[in-house]
Amino acid sequence: MHDDHLLPAEPGVRAIARELYGHAKGLPLISPHGHVDPAILADDQPFPDPARLIVVPDHYVTRMLASQGVAPADLGVPSLDGSPVETDGRTIWRRLAAQWHLFRGTPSRLWTERVLAEVFGVDGPLHADTADRVYDTIAERLASPEFRPRALFERFNLEVLATTESPLSDLGAHAKLAADGWGGPGGRVITTFRPDDLVDLDWPGWADRVAQLGAGTYAEFLDRLRERRQAFIAAGATSSDHGHPTAATLALAPQQAAALFDRALGGRAEPGDAETFRAHMLVEFARMSVEDGLVMQLHPGAVRNHNAALYARHGRDVGGDIPSPTEYVRALKPLLDELGTDPRFRIVLYTLDETAFTRELAPLAGGYPAVFLGAPWWFLDSPEGLRRYREAVTETAGFYNTAGFVDDTRAFCSIPVRHDVARRVDAGFLARLVAEHRLPLDEAAETIADLAYHLPKRVYARTVHNGASA
Amino acid sequence: MHDDHLLPAEPGVRAIARELYGHAKGLPLISPHGHVDPAILADDQPFPDPARLIVVPDHYVTRMLASQGVAPADLGVPSLDGSPVETDGRTIWRRLAAQWHLFRGTPSRLWTERVLAEVFGVDGPLHADTADRVYDTIAERLASPEFRPRALFERFNLEVLATTESPLSDLGAHAKLAADGWGGPGGRVITTFRPDDLVDLDWPGWADRVAQLGAGTYAEFLDRLRERRQAFIAAGATSSDHGHPTAATLALAPQQAAALFDRALGGRAEPGDAETFRAHMLVEFARMSVEDGLVMQLHPGAVRNHNAALYARHGRDVGGDIPSPTEYVRALKPLLDELGTDPRFRIVLYTLDETAFTRELAPLAGGYPAVFLGAPWWFLDSPEGLRRYREAVTETAGFYNTAGFVDDTRAFCSIPVRHDVARRVDAGFLARLVAEHRLPLDEAAETIADLAYHLPKRVYARTVHNGASA
Amino acid sequence: MHDDHLLPAEPGVRAIARELYGHAKGLPLISPHGHVDPAILADDQPFPDPARLIVVPDHYVTRMLASQGVAPADLGVPSLDGSPVETDGRTIWRRLAAQWHLFRGTPSRLWTERVLAEVFGVDGPLHADTADRVYDTIAERLASPEFRPRALFERFNLEVLATTESPLSDLGAHAKLAADGWGGPGGRVITTFRPDDLVDLDWPGWADRVAQLGAGTYAEFLDRLRERRQAFIAAGATSSDHGHPTAATLALAPQQAAALFDRALGGRAEPGDAETFRAHMLVEFARMSVEDGLVMQLHPGAVRNHNAALYARHGRDVGGDIPSPTEYVRALKPLLDELGTDPRFRIVLYTLDETAFTRELAPLAGGYPAVFLGAPWWFLDSPEGLRRYREAVTETAGFYNTAGFVDDTRAFCSIPVRHDVARRVDAGFLARLVAEHRLPLDEAAETIADLAYHLPKRVYARTVHNGASA
Repeated sequence: MHDDHLLPAEPGVRAIARELYGHAKGLPLISPHGHVDPAILADDQPFPDPARLIVVPDHYVTRMLASQGVAPADLGVPSLDGSPVETDGRTIWRRLAAQWHLFRGTPSRLWTERVLAEVFGVDGPLHADTADRVYDTIAERLASPEFRPRALFERFNLEVLATTESPLSDLGAHAKLAADGWGGPGGRVITTFRPDDLVDLDWPGWADRVAQLGAGTYAEFLDRLRERRQAFIAAGATSSDHGHPTAATLALAPQQAAALFDRALGGRAEPGDAETFRAHMLVEFARMSVEDGLVMQLHPGAVRNHNAALYARHGRDVGGDIPSPTEYVRALKPLLDELGTDPRFRIVLYTLDETAFTRELAPLAGGYPAVFLGAPWWFLDSPEGLRRYREAVTETAGFYNTAGFVDDTRAFCSIPVRHDVARRVDAGFLARLVAEHRLPLDEAAETIADLAYHLPKRVYARTVHNGASA
Repeated sequence: MHDDHLLPAEPGVRAIARELYGHAKGLPLISPHGHVDPAILADDQPFPDPARLIVVPDHYVTRMLASQGVAPADLGVPSLDGSPVETDGRTIWRRLAAQWHLFRGTPSRLWTERVLAEVFGVDGPLHADTADRVYDTIAERLASPEFRPRALFERFNLEVLATTESPLSDLGAHAKLAADGWGGPGGRVITTFRPDDLVDLDWPGWADRVAQLGAGTYAEFLDRLRERRQAFIAAGATSSDHGHPTAATLALAPQQAAALFDRALGGRAEPGDAETFRAHMLVEFARMSVEDGLVMQLHPGAVRNHNAALYARHGRDVGGDIPSPTEYVRALKPLLDELGTDPRFRIVLYTLDETAFTRELAPLAGGYPAVFLGAPWWFLDSPEGLRRYREAVTETAGFYNTAGFVDDTRAFCSIPVRHDVARRVDAGFLARLVAEHRLPLDEAAETIADLAYHLPKRVYARTVHNGASA
Repeated sequence: MHDDHLLPAEPGVRAIARELYGHAKGLPLISPHGHVDPAILADDQPFPDPARLIVVPDHYVTRMLASQGVAPADLGVPSLDGSPVETDGRTIWRRLAAQWHLFRGTPSRLWTERVLAEVFGVDGPLHADTADRVYDTIAERLASPEFRPRALFERFNLEVLATTESPLSDLGAHAKLAADGWGGPGGRVITTFRPDDLVDLDWPGWADRVAQLGAGTYAEFLDRLRERRQAFIAAGATSSDHGHPTAATLALAPQQAAALFDRALGGRAEPGDAETFRAHMLVEFARMSVEDGLVMQLHPGAVRNHNAALYARHGRDVGGDIPSPTEYVRALKPLLDELGTDPRFRIVLYTLDETAFTRELAPLAGGYPAVFLGAPWWFLDSPEGLRRYREAVTETAGFYNTAGFVDDTRAFCSIPVRHDVARRVDAGFLARLVAEHRLPLDEAAETIADLAYHLPKRVYARTVHNGASA
């Protein structure tokens, strides 16, 4: 990897960017939202083979290969229906290497190449002829103690990593982490409260999960959720997360909410009930945030399981989701009317629809004390996406209504490079401001350190009742 | 301020941009649309203290501070409910200075710093330690005759400044300006006809205002509006302005319009009537434009008073409005079907939704003789917004279907810097075209002078019946 | 034309771009979609005068002039109502030259200037004073054999050119081309199956055209269309094309489709039937593609004939169409549910709404094997549009889910420059990736050749039943 990777090409701007990047490069990583399996760190066992580490679980990678006719089953993606999938890691790896040109210009390419080089010490490019050599190098490294998860965690300079769990999780991995001095409030590995499977009536099995939660009435439902939030806080959680089809919010009267809940539990949900209930529950969770201080995150706008064939064979979260146009201004008004200026409340908004950045999200974040802008998410978490984000939001929201970088990844080994990409792109953006005499260098230097470290640490801290952070 | 402020960083492009900017820099300012209080120039009294000049009335500034927990009341924003607000200018100023880092990367920062330096001769940066010194410098300057409004007007090289008034205004300030040789048709300070408060049924007090206008029937309503337009033309107006939630237009049959009007006046308006009436009145005003030659401006797409807490305490126009997705193509069809190719009609379209620039607005302006594209508005009036605007619209609309820069500001002292920012960004855009061999230098030089001066002068001139400008 | 036309200004990036462009510059042109009249090449007669060649048929040009008050009739655009139009080519040409400044910054300017210089050897700029000289030079050239259409075709290094015809066309021009060794399957000039006039119930005369096709029932309608597709394939077609107001797709049950068809044929179509039928027919045509291997193209989102005055006087396709917001994700789901992962099916998606590029189109193309992204279309086929396209789609779709450049033009002489512009912009984009150490130079060189030649050749090849290309 070249030292100037991703920095602007113009030599004057690059020199400034290089200096600014120097102020962020060595700062610890704050990873306040992501999808790493906590058992990886709780158990601290060696990672499996290179394909199972890098290809199989990464839907960015498998969807691109699928788009050019390499079936997910041939890449080892587990099937729901018991149909056979490739099990040989080396075969899967060769299939990736043979199609590596498909990833030119994509972040998956950048992330993977830097993981290979910087985490595993692979030198030289990946292609069909080098596939086996690269595979063997990684496999050899994975067998050694320095490549165990906790050792990598230290080496990655991670200060804190948040995983994401359902309220139904027993948080066993987090308990083990806490017992080992790695978890719990203020710990290095913490959890995040993600209740989508309990509020989405459209998600098959909803009623069973409500029963599993121990709730028979709407009042019990809210109580159980409040209790689980306390358990999550005990496991270090500082935030909740909500992945909804839209950003709709709604404050139903309690009896209306209870009636809807009863209807749904009785299998008599009406058209529109699912959207209404999700919208209402966002307001309920926001109220709980005021009580318990969890920072709220909202990730709206994905059409889940769009690829019907893929969903039928392989299930959820394997690359079949597609973004859609997402409206925030009218959608969030009920929530913001109630809590938008409440100092005890904080919400971080994400989007897959970047048209909302200048039009809706920056004005909301630049106007409401409770609102912060999340980092570019998913398809937008890329060099161009990160650059467009700063260009789009800064003039209206400034830097200090943004929440800092979030890697949002399942791929543990890619965490450092993802943060590094964001730091480099921010350095490039700030360098342009400096070069165009829009910001003095010393303030740019302070800003990049804030973006990389201080700001996410502050925004994702749990608030206490007086509005301060805990 | 650096001589190359905002010019592109690449040395070759910068050299071209510097040369192009030189062709625009000294041209007089045409300010055909804005919200300066005409009494400021009519009375020509010294400005109040620095905080009341620069902080209190600027919703760009107060909303950013509010977004980080500095209450508008603590910044002196007047309250509707009589609750106390900060009255000490120095205290307000210190609150701004202490939070100045929030404005990094925002146009408010650029505008304010250059106002301090170039209008008031403040040197050095603003921060908590310099707050008092800066405050005192400005306060001292404000007391001297060279800082009276009319003296600044001359110094700013303003050729014409349009203010904006309701048809209910008696235009008293403009009468005084005319008496002093500063106002009236062809004058230096002119008015703009803005009838929103008379056509928006959703705006509390509508019926009272219609009574105040002296109208009891729909026919009288139209007649009174026509008469007020004549009074505005006598006070120099060359344009009308319309701020609507959407761009919807509609040509009701006269009896339908009258029935709707009667219903609304009788307090029996039905759902949808307000939108229908606004849409219809845009067509009526367009017809009046054909008669009297006022250029029509449309500013659609703001969700007004979105921040309910702010609105309840401080009322309208204090930073609580948020943009929303705005459709133009179907919305404007009724109006354009009737008048889009009429040489006696001219409409300038604005947007807060920049996705409309390439998709809808540039094609409309590049196809209909009557349509011109307004400058980037409000949240888009910024270096990045101005740049994206040219990149988005030029290839379809060219330069000559755009209407020139509009500052749209309440902040009198910021007018020169706002125009200068636009001139610099246009110079940068044109310089890139030259550097990429897309436009010869001599044509770029002619173009920048047209954008800065000749084009707004021509587009905002009142048309006379043969389609020529008056 | 400068050698570095359109290449990035920064010297380091420019040097790389120049090298990359060198890898694409000399490759033959593949023009898989456009609107050149095949009779031009079948008859191989001299082109008419310069105005009829360059101004009259180009709605990019006539709409811009119209937007500034030069009536289409004064530019020789044929009228429907028999009202007089200018017939003198020289007069029309002078009108263009006098308003040439309107085109600054537009692709029409670039295209036309390079056609004048590179095709016709005109030197010096176009303006009022040079209009006659330029006109005479072109007119003189047009009279010589080297400027006959087939001679230019050879000189342009065109490998294949697809025209576009209605199923009702007898394909006579293509038969003549085939007889001359220029047409038929694998030929140099081929056709494209465009059935809009037979599936759009809103298009006046639909029932007559169905009768002309020889269909009285829905089953016959499908059979006749299948037969016409075979005739088109015999005339070289490798693709079908569909221009719809929206991207809606729908799989009606056969009896529902037949009932709708009967209703419409009987003049009893209900509101919504037209949209339903278009949506359903897209699925029917996709099924036919599985059978016969024609690649499907979809061009949605234009509001046709928006300019009512223009339509009334001059009819369709003369510059009165305006884009509108276009949704793809939900719209295409019925089609993709059925065929999105079928290796026998391929669809190329176009848009006039560039907000869909990152949000919808790149995720769809980067996820479904059947989906490819078309080149920037119409108002987006421009240097800035092409650049934004690569910046928007590459990170999610990569390069290899895009379909290569399509000129989509009626203007035969502009084909080379349009392809050259795309190659230059792609060189600039790739050069930035190289300069920012995101892609090695050798891979960028391979990529630009793929984009310019190999990829469109592969994507637009007719598929055979096993999913391979024919």
